[in-house]
Amino acid sequence: MNPKEHTDTSQLCIHTITTKPWKIEEAAKHFSAAGVKGITVWRDALEGRDIRQTGRMIRDYDLTIVSLCRGGFFANKDEKKRKSAIDDNVRAIDEAAELGTSMIVLVCGADQSQSLEESRKQIRDGIAEIIPYALSAGVKLAIEPLHPMYADSRSAINTIAQANDMAEELNSPCVGVAFDVYHLWWDPSMEKEIKRCGENENLLAFHICDWKVPTTDMLLDRGLMGEGCIPVKQIRAWVEAAGFTGFNEVEIFSTTYWQENQSDFLKKIIKAYKENS
Amino acid sequence: MNPKEHTDTSQLCIHTITTKPWKIEEAAKHFSAAGVKGITVWRDALEGRDIRQTGRMIRDYDLTIVSLCRGGFFANKDEKKRKSAIDDNVRAIDEAAELGTSMIVLVCGADQSQSLEESRKQIRDGIAEIIPYALSAGVKLAIEPLHPMYADSRSAINTIAQANDMAEELNSPCVGVAFDVYHLWWDPSMEKEIKRCGENENLLAFHICDWKVPTTDMLLDRGLMGEGCIPVKQIRAWVEAAGFTGFNEVEIFSTTYWQENQSDFLKKIIKAYKENS
Repeated sequence: MNPKEHTDTSQLCIHTITTKPWKIEEAAKHFSAAGVKGITVWRDALEGRDIRQTGRMIRDYDLTIVSLCRGGFFANKDEKKRKSAIDDNVRAIDEAAELGTSMIVLVCGADQSQSLEESRKQIRDGIAEIIPYALSAGVKLAIEPLHPMYADSRSAINTIAQANDMAEELNSPCVGVAFDVYHLWWDPSMEKEIKRCGENENLLAFHICDWKVPTTDMLLDRGLMGEGCIPVKQIRAWVEAAGFTGFNEVEIFSTTYWQENQSDFLKKIIKAYKENS
Repeated sequence: MNPKEHTDTSQLCIHTITTKPWKIEEAAKHFSAAGVKGITVWRDALEGRDIRQTGRMIRDYDLTIVSLCRGGFFANKDEKKRKSAIDDNVRAIDEAAELGTSMIVLVCGADQSQSLEESRKQIRDGIAEIIPYALSAGVKLAIEPLHPMYADSRSAINTIAQANDMAEELNSPCVGVAFDVYHLWWDPSMEKEIKRCGENENLLAFHICDWKVPTTDMLLDRGLMGEGCIPVKQIRAWVEAAGFTGFNEVEIFSTTYWQENQSDFLKKIIKAYKENS
């Protein structure tokens, strides 16, 4: 059932937010020195920087910029705010192109003052609106379904089935799905939907971490692979069987780990990646 | 879309845990005086009491005992613990019969040290094992799907579709589903699955409260109806369209409300029930 072990770090990508205390220049340097080959850049890490130059800096460290995180937040009862979200997504596409990455992760948003159904419609319409611009920029849009505990605010897309439905309905070569084990591990239809996602060539990204037991904070208590109850190896086997050959992206928000020495934390990430993912 | 307003409290049931600071005798007295007609009894509220006598006390207040909460916790890697869970469920059936209620709510359990698939199999086997005893006692078993954020510990049954599947597979007149808006409000297939649940005569219970935005605690921060983002009225319309005519059970765990004067809280419950559910 389990896939081949990771014998090296050639498929390992780390999100800048995972080692949040490091500036992006430090993260790139340390990741590269440790043999990590991919980085996903969060937009806050780019603040105050020349984006093209930062992209070059990262590539000089022999790192692939797997994606820019994040666009989205299309759902809003207020039409002006929906338009401003479209503008922001267009900027994100520009930033991705400047940075030199071919993918944006979409955290689609939800607005508690309206129905989930309405939020879901606005998400579909919002993505449809930016598709032409994304196509012309050569940037892919990865819809990331978020755990149902975020359906009140961060995303009205809460299962991989929903993300598959939406990607298939939008039916564009630039739209697909980002699969994050943290959000989707509980879903009884996960294996089937991963297969479907691959068959439709929509499986764009694979994010890993673990669900700690107990989880003490709904946002900032993610664990390293192996620390919790998510069968990461098994899910990777399904993802690979569905044709995915891309990076395994470690995305951990953790007040605990952010307080640690980040070089020590990086060693733990690599160990957990090799042993438990 | 919305159902008829609640003009009185004849369909209102409150769980003893909702007003946890009150002993069951106080809860019954206050509920009854306020015109509430139903009570669901949590087993901790029965501690140190003669159960038959407590049942009579409650009925003397003209309250219907809607259900006993809770049985379940069938999933465990350890076979001895699974057997002990069966014993505990048999005791719960006895207690329900002694108390004078015809239903037990099942919180099915999950064991993080094994796969969800294995936990789900053990849940099905566990329920199957207690069915004959439940039938002979005239007690119904209501499978309650819990929010996916509890899939690590409290329940491996996390969608109404799963609960429907299991109830249909077990195919016994004593097995059905308890629908709680808090756990299931985010599910895009909710309306369809409520309909299916009703068509198969499996819709046994309807629990209400609200999802606060933000939610600050994964267990003890539930809100009163109207305080959060759950479309309780709309869901009630679907539940009633599916044939449900039973009690609307207010089940709120809240450290905030437990610190309040419980008589004031009871007034708020009734107001929220009439206006927002």
